[in-house]
Amino acid sequence: GDAAKGKAKSATCSACHGSNGIAQIPMYPNLAGQKEQYLVLQLKAFRSGERKNMVMAPMAAGLSDEDIDNLAAYYASLNPAG
Amino acid sequence: GDAAKGKAKSATCSACHGSNGIAQIPMYPNLAGQKEQYLVLQLKAFRSGERKNMVMAPMAAGLSDEDIDNLAAYYASLNPAG
Repeated sequence: GDAAKGKAKSATCSACHGSNGIAQIPMYPNLAGQKEQYLVLQLKAFRSGERKNMVMAPMAAGLSDEDIDNLAAYYASLNPAG
Repeated sequence: GDAAKGKAKSATCSACHGSNGIAQIPMYPNLAGQKEQYLVLQLKAFRSGERKNMVMAPMAAGLSDEDIDNLAAYYASLNPAG
């Protein structure tokens, strides 16, 4: 994935997951420095409905495979310490 | 949760998620420094079957609420940078 393109798509994500990938809300996960492949798998699982979540389902519904690869690359590239 | 008690329960987890909470395998998530409340919610979702995963379901099946609170406290306490 292309982290720069992922960053350009991340505005919606950042409302809950933080502009630096550190979540603003304790029930939501940090994404900064997370494994890229894990993030791809989870976004695809939210998109397919395999992983059920009322917030993430509509977010993921509009993402292409390329968008998902790019978002995963972007969040994986961020400093996990914030 | 009690992080010391969580650490004592974490041997099984560490096979995939790393002894420092940084996963050994790209498809598995890092847990170090993750939000404690998020970790509690996910372990309970794996235990109930709400979040379906063939690896995590049997792992979570044997955990009490207290175990889950302690494991979440432990992983949340680890350095997210490894």
